[in-house]
Amino acid sequence: MTDVYLNAIAGVQGSTRQRNDAITLGMPGPQCERLINKIGIIERPVAGSDQYTSDLALGALRKLLTENPWLTPCDVGALLVCTQTPDHLIPGVSSRLHGQLGLPTDCFVLDINQGCSGFVLGTQMAAALQAIQAKGKSTILVNADTYTRLLRAEDLPTRVLFGDAATATVFSSHIHRGLRVAYCRSYADGSGYDTFVAHGSALRPSGDRTAGIHMDGPAILNFALRVVPDAVQQALADTGLRIDEIKVVIFHQANHFVISQLSRKLELSPAQVPENCVRMGNVVSASIPTLLAEQMPELRSGDKVMAVGFGVGLSWGVSVFECVLDAHSD
Amino acid sequence: MTDVYLNAIAGVQGSTRQRNDAITLGMPGPQCERLINKIGIIERPVAGSDQYTSDLALGALRKLLTENPWLTPCDVGALLVCTQTPDHLIPGVSSRLHGQLGLPTDCFVLDINQGCSGFVLGTQMAAALQAIQAKGKSTILVNADTYTRLLRAEDLPTRVLFGDAATATVFSSHIHRGLRVAYCRSYADGSGYDTFVAHGSALRPSGDRTAGIHMDGPAILNFALRVVPDAVQQALADTGLRIDEIKVVIFHQANHFVISQLSRKLELSPAQVPENCVRMGNVVSASIPTLLAEQMPELRSGDKVMAVGFGVGLSWGVSVFECVLDAHSD
Repeated sequence: MTDVYLNAIAGVQGSTRQRNDAITLGMPGPQCERLINKIGIIERPVAGSDQYTSDLALGALRKLLTENPWLTPCDVGALLVCTQTPDHLIPGVSSRLHGQLGLPTDCFVLDINQGCSGFVLGTQMAAALQAIQAKGKSTILVNADTYTRLLRAEDLPTRVLFGDAATATVFSSHIHRGLRVAYCRSYADGSGYDTFVAHGSALRPSGDRTAGIHMDGPAILNFALRVVPDAVQQALADTGLRIDEIKVVIFHQANHFVISQLSRKLELSPAQVPENCVRMGNVVSASIPTLLAEQMPELRSGDKVMAVGFGVGLSWGVSVFECVLDAHSD
Repeated sequence: MTDVYLNAIAGVQGSTRQRNDAITLGMPGPQCERLINKIGIIERPVAGSDQYTSDLALGALRKLLTENPWLTPCDVGALLVCTQTPDHLIPGVSSRLHGQLGLPTDCFVLDINQGCSGFVLGTQMAAALQAIQAKGKSTILVNADTYTRLLRAEDLPTRVLFGDAATATVFSSHIHRGLRVAYCRSYADGSGYDTFVAHGSALRPSGDRTAGIHMDGPAILNFALRVVPDAVQQALADTGLRIDEIKVVIFHQANHFVISQLSRKLELSPAQVPENCVRMGNVVSASIPTLLAEQMPELRSGDKVMAVGFGVGLSWGVSVFECVLDAHSD
């Protein structure tokens, strides 16, 4: 198959910030301190009252185009928007963005719905689309969500985790620079559908439940600790790599506790496991690309990077990238 | 690229039916007759009070598996669900179905959001995924919607058009029987986003508008008559076929008026343009596969079939298939 390169990522955050402190959360000080020490999230970006998912997504796309002058709207052959919190059910956010940016008519435009695994599945889909794309055309994957709008005020254990952000990532086959997509594999277990549901969010009524996100935290944690290490081992087996050959492992930034448990199980060194959830919280499918963008300037040619997404659905997946800095174009 | 075959389609309809007659619509008889003559829709399937999109989709999937015993759950390498009316925003309908059917863990599971062009874009996506799929694995595309739940009671011109249904379509590369995917191309014009919006359906508030579907009928009609003939001509140019070499053209069943206008513009013979909207109405992205399933028994090896989707987004696209009946398997 054609080699596909992740060339660049740009991200924006919700325009306001919420702090996880005793006063804001209305919690006794020592209890709040224990909570923050465990989840490792002090502050989170939150969408402003007039910011919806398409607004964050548009910001990320404009930043991507500004920072990468080689990429013009007419080069965009496909626009995928991964979101679970669209402005409207009909049409998708991608249609709105297509119009706002004046992208070409001859463009594959689609919203995809996945949560915390959405960057890995989106990369897999972008790579598949790139294979049938016209030469010289790029695919943009947007990951954008405003989960905070669906959090229930009384659900403190969930509220302290999530933030709002968007990223725009460009993939191409003709610009051989950035991160070569070396591997993608994704998994699902729909028997865990009920462990994370936004009740009353679309067509099925919420019944006697309060509308909003209902997360069974312990079930999600058990799921992650059970399936993620196996998926990482499978990725190593499939690519013939050893874990110490991976420069950095970008875990979905669910919270510090789950990342530390996964790192321990996989015997990763602290240097291999960057984190940014302390000031970002869990920004759903934008979480991995936000952290990956922070790490990209540190990478050298040949470095291997693993991205590991897991969450709602249940859905999880692993991507492996190889850094390529000596650019050339087809 | 690997050849991909659409092997089979199964469909189900909403469990109740609504008639477009003067009494039901509360319209004077002659006015109602003129309306029905123009739109050519007498009756539409409508989801029962306890039927949501995942229920229709599950029915279609179970029927597909029953009617095609060669296809077992463990053969499913990817499940795409195209819907704009999911049960919940989080998680997607595809996750629910994955659990209900006990599909394998090693399965690519994703909801995609498109409307009346969703079968063409879904076919394009399924074909791209099939190219990176393990040998012997199939991709199932579900098209399922319950638009009638988002129609506004007072919006008679829109209410008379839409029905609720679901289809499940299986694509594979190893079973060379059915319809070979010969061509897919899709287009978008997001500057027409506002011509068809379900206000108040997701995160952005509806403001002073009534919640529900707002369709600018004349704008959508003008759009279809403007772009669809060009997309069909482009498909003919790209495939080297003449219009009289296409056995049947499966237009999205928006309504009889738009189909007849498109047929006239493209100089199609009545035999080339089957219709089923008279008893189905417009069942969104399930519309093309429902009609295609009806036509498949009439096809002979070598017959070319064109599918033409257009609608909300704005989004449109054309697929060309070639009938292959002398089955063989890899």
